[in-house]
Amino acid sequence: MRKLDSMMALALGLLAGPALAQTTVLTAHRIHTMDAARPQAQAVAFDASGKILDVGDAKDLLARHPGAKRLDVGNATVVPGLIDAHGHVSGLGWAMLTADLVDTADKAEILERLRAKEKELKPGEWLIGRGWDQNDWPEKAFPTAADLDAAFPGRPVWLSRIDGHAGWANSAAMRAVKRDLSGSWQPDGGTIRRDDKGQPTGVFVDNAMALVDAAQPAASDATAEKALSLGMRAAVEHGLTGVHDAGIPLEELHRYQRLADRGQVPLRIYAMADGNNAALESLCRNGLYRHPSGRLQMRAVKLYADGALGSRGAALLADYSDDHGNRGLMVMSPEELAAAADKAHRCGVQVATHAIGDRGNRVALDTYAKALGKDVESDHRWRIEHAQVLSPEDLPRLAQMHVIASMQPTHATSDMPWAEDRLGPQRIVGAYAWRQLRDAGTHLALGSDFPVESVDPRLGLYAAVSRSDGKGLPAGGWYPDEKLTAFEALRGFTLEAAYAGFAENEVGSLAPGKRADFVVLAEDPLAVPEAALRTLDVRATYVDGKAVYEAKKK
Amino acid sequence: MRKLDSMMALALGLLAGPALAQTTVLTAHRIHTMDAARPQAQAVAFDASGKILDVGDAKDLLARHPGAKRLDVGNATVVPGLIDAHGHVSGLGWAMLTADLVDTADKAEILERLRAKEKELKPGEWLIGRGWDQNDWPEKAFPTAADLDAAFPGRPVWLSRIDGHAGWANSAAMRAVKRDLSGSWQPDGGTIRRDDKGQPTGVFVDNAMALVDAAQPAASDATAEKALSLGMRAAVEHGLTGVHDAGIPLEELHRYQRLADRGQVPLRIYAMADGNNAALESLCRNGLYRHPSGRLQMRAVKLYADGALGSRGAALLADYSDDHGNRGLMVMSPEELAAAADKAHRCGVQVATHAIGDRGNRVALDTYAKALGKDVESDHRWRIEHAQVLSPEDLPRLAQMHVIASMQPTHATSDMPWAEDRLGPQRIVGAYAWRQLRDAGTHLALGSDFPVESVDPRLGLYAAVSRSDGKGLPAGGWYPDEKLTAFEALRGFTLEAAYAGFAENEVGSLAPGKRADFVVLAEDPLAVPEAALRTLDVRATYVDGKAVYEAKKK
Repeated sequence: MRKLDSMMALALGLLAGPALAQTTVLTAHRIHTMDAARPQAQAVAFDASGKILDVGDAKDLLARHPGAKRLDVGNATVVPGLIDAHGHVSGLGWAMLTADLVDTADKAEILERLRAKEKELKPGEWLIGRGWDQNDWPEKAFPTAADLDAAFPGRPVWLSRIDGHAGWANSAAMRAVKRDLSGSWQPDGGTIRRDDKGQPTGVFVDNAMALVDAAQPAASDATAEKALSLGMRAAVEHGLTGVHDAGIPLEELHRYQRLADRGQVPLRIYAMADGNNAALESLCRNGLYRHPSGRLQMRAVKLYADGALGSRGAALLADYSDDHGNRGLMVMSPEELAAAADKAHRCGVQVATHAIGDRGNRVALDTYAKALGKDVESDHRWRIEHAQVLSPEDLPRLAQMHVIASMQPTHATSDMPWAEDRLGPQRIVGAYAWRQLRDAGTHLALGSDFPVESVDPRLGLYAAVSRSDGKGLPAGGWYPDEKLTAFEALRGFTLEAAYAGFAENEVGSLAPGKRADFVVLAEDPLAVPEAALRTLDVRATYVDGKAVYEAKKK
Repeated sequence: MRKLDSMMALALGLLAGPALAQTTVLTAHRIHTMDAARPQAQAVAFDASGKILDVGDAKDLLARHPGAKRLDVGNATVVPGLIDAHGHVSGLGWAMLTADLVDTADKAEILERLRAKEKELKPGEWLIGRGWDQNDWPEKAFPTAADLDAAFPGRPVWLSRIDGHAGWANSAAMRAVKRDLSGSWQPDGGTIRRDDKGQPTGVFVDNAMALVDAAQPAASDATAEKALSLGMRAAVEHGLTGVHDAGIPLEELHRYQRLADRGQVPLRIYAMADGNNAALESLCRNGLYRHPSGRLQMRAVKLYADGALGSRGAALLADYSDDHGNRGLMVMSPEELAAAADKAHRCGVQVATHAIGDRGNRVALDTYAKALGKDVESDHRWRIEHAQVLSPEDLPRLAQMHVIASMQPTHATSDMPWAEDRLGPQRIVGAYAWRQLRDAGTHLALGSDFPVESVDPRLGLYAAVSRSDGKGLPAGGWYPDEKLTAFEALRGFTLEAAYAGFAENEVGSLAPGKRADFVVLAEDPLAVPEAALRTLDVRATYVDGKAVYEAKKK
């Protein structure tokens, strides 16, 4: 952390010696600048504060900056720092602290992983896990508390689904809930699954998850900070120099602030206030927030239209194709969304609304149109997070209303085995439709939704370009008309993600006046065969011209 | 030709027996329909006239059309018939009748090929060749008549450059020109290259070529018809079901008409009248032309703004970066363009203007704006052919004015070794910029400009996707930000080319009501690695539901 401390001190104007005033000239076999005026270069000069001074040929730049420190990465390719426009940093950290149930083939494998994790716990401590997906199991049905009770009769077990839109509790965890979970009542925007006797089965969908969450003893602040740090560390190790943290409470912002004050935020966090709550209220009262280090800001609010497609919680305009009578559910009602959007508009706060189903997306767009009024023509940059299923009438509205589509390519390749079952052959054409959105003129920011998907942006680049899974299936890609080129995918993870965070004049491309945030890759992501995007070798990650991650020499 | 005769007779309503009334169900492992509402299918049903009745699953279609003839292409992939939006059919045919000088490494190789071709000629007959490019030679300088005179002292030799914008004559050919070629005069829009004594060196640029062309004895009509037929045959053998023939005189239209009357037009020819001449006058007097077979029409006029980049004849706004003081030249003056465009507008004729340099393109756009006036918002579909170098101010104008960009991907990969020398690092960013044009909302029709480039659309698909040459260089592609996906490239050669010819309701995608024009490929062009696009195996080409080409069984 010494480098970061120096940088922070410099940024705060406390230090300015001749050694630090030195210019660095980065040279590489190839630099994809993502700057349309000069797409390719071999050298970038930046000053000690990390501000880019010059971009061009190696020979020219070395001549123009005599005495500069040389940072030659040889045959490597440099690209602007990658930005994940939609992730959950502490979620990722917590996932690293809890049992990972992703890609478990059946319940037996889940029990095995839980038993392994239990060994790290104190007696009575909750056993938390995440990442199960009943679609991967032979029976493809929701699990029950009984599946867990034999192995964990006394210790509360609480396991969230891969999409975060359903939770699976054992009986000990349900006993910890104060309210009687039996009967026929349901919380707003959520479902307690019950058997025919009215007894809860152990699965809680969307807002019903809060009942079990609330029963869990609060984590210590030290643990919460540890989770954040773990999440940020994982991000920079994968080439990320920025993350849009998609919905955090005010106390999490305070946690970030403490880390930033200590110079322990290694990348740029663009935090969104979680819902119409204290953090949004704070933005309205105190104004948009930016930490002096440039590493942390909050000027957006995350709202929630509907649930997720996997758990059939996404709000659809018509019935689910594989569940007649079910059209999903809204998480915030149209009225709640309208109130929150009006408040955000009044306070100059950017709105980013989770919307998966075609109904969820329509409500989000209608809400934006009403809240923005004539300001729809202003530089509002309101976003839809996921924009996953759009009806043909709504698809062009994003561009017309200057609404950004913030999409996650790996969701498409994770969901493709069953998405068409849910939606049928007509609606699927408007699903995960990033090419159609771009063609309509929509700004397209890309991300991962980690930890729902991997934090690794290489997988996102690959999914956007191939529309195939890790085995290259289906050959040629799922609905290949929606593919992006490698350049477009990279732009989605750099300049377009920066744009979605009002930061395209600061980061997202390498050009004079911008910050020296970049990634050194052993291979050229625009030259390798698409399958090789998944295994690009991230040699180093730089933020403000300083290495925040360097791979061990091979 | 028997199949075509039957089809023609049917189209004319002269024949209708029960055998011909039969429906055919085409089934394939994969059909990329290019129909946005149903991108993928496994079966297409069409009637005996070649009209598509139904698109969908094989099982469904076979059930819905009992008694239909089955045409199963097995594991192959079917795509809509490919359309080359810019080619020169008789040029291709003539090239097949003349000496091919493409890819000659030096003058010695040219002389060798010319000597071989001479053996087919009668005494005194002109020796015609095409395809030389001094940029491929060690000396990279224009050749002279003297280079040819030793080998061909008496026989006229006339060789056009790869881009068709310069010709190279020997002394015998120059002697056949009536006008004295020496002195200091120059024809409008052309250059006779001369030595310091005022003697012509043998190279004639742009309009100056007409002096030598005119000296050549006219070909017989039978030979001209043979050239057209050879060109059309080569087209269907490469998977083309349509060609936009970019500029033909009235007598060539008559030649096509005779062939169409005899059922000898195996694909759809969308002919453009060549310049403000007799063919345009005929359209104005007699109305837009369409042959009853649906295989031939003329409703467009080809105009010419400037020359070509290779011979530095493209009109630039500033000097050539490698030839200071030279800004290229206009082929038609702005006034001539305006007069022709006004006439076309008055007659309801689509205008397609050749424009290469940024000045050529600006003049073309200015001409269109003035001629169209308020009708710029109408469904005019005026086009710019090549749209090769655009200044940043003009690039968005195509979409704004609803002007179609008709581009040739192989031009980019042929020109990339020297294009940046001509244009410098700033202007090159707006050159061959098909991705930027698409992103701006421009309709993008693709073609080859054959015989300037190969008639083979596989090379165009590959160039659009890879921006690399046949060896895969430069690795990752030349300005890879401009790449298209394979789907987009295929759309450029199908639906978008159809749109550029007012035919998107008839061809370009496979959907009910449209024509059964399709290509059977052994591989899936959307699934193969990009390098394999160059070697896709064209198994068969169908027009109006009938095979016009079938590969020999392997």
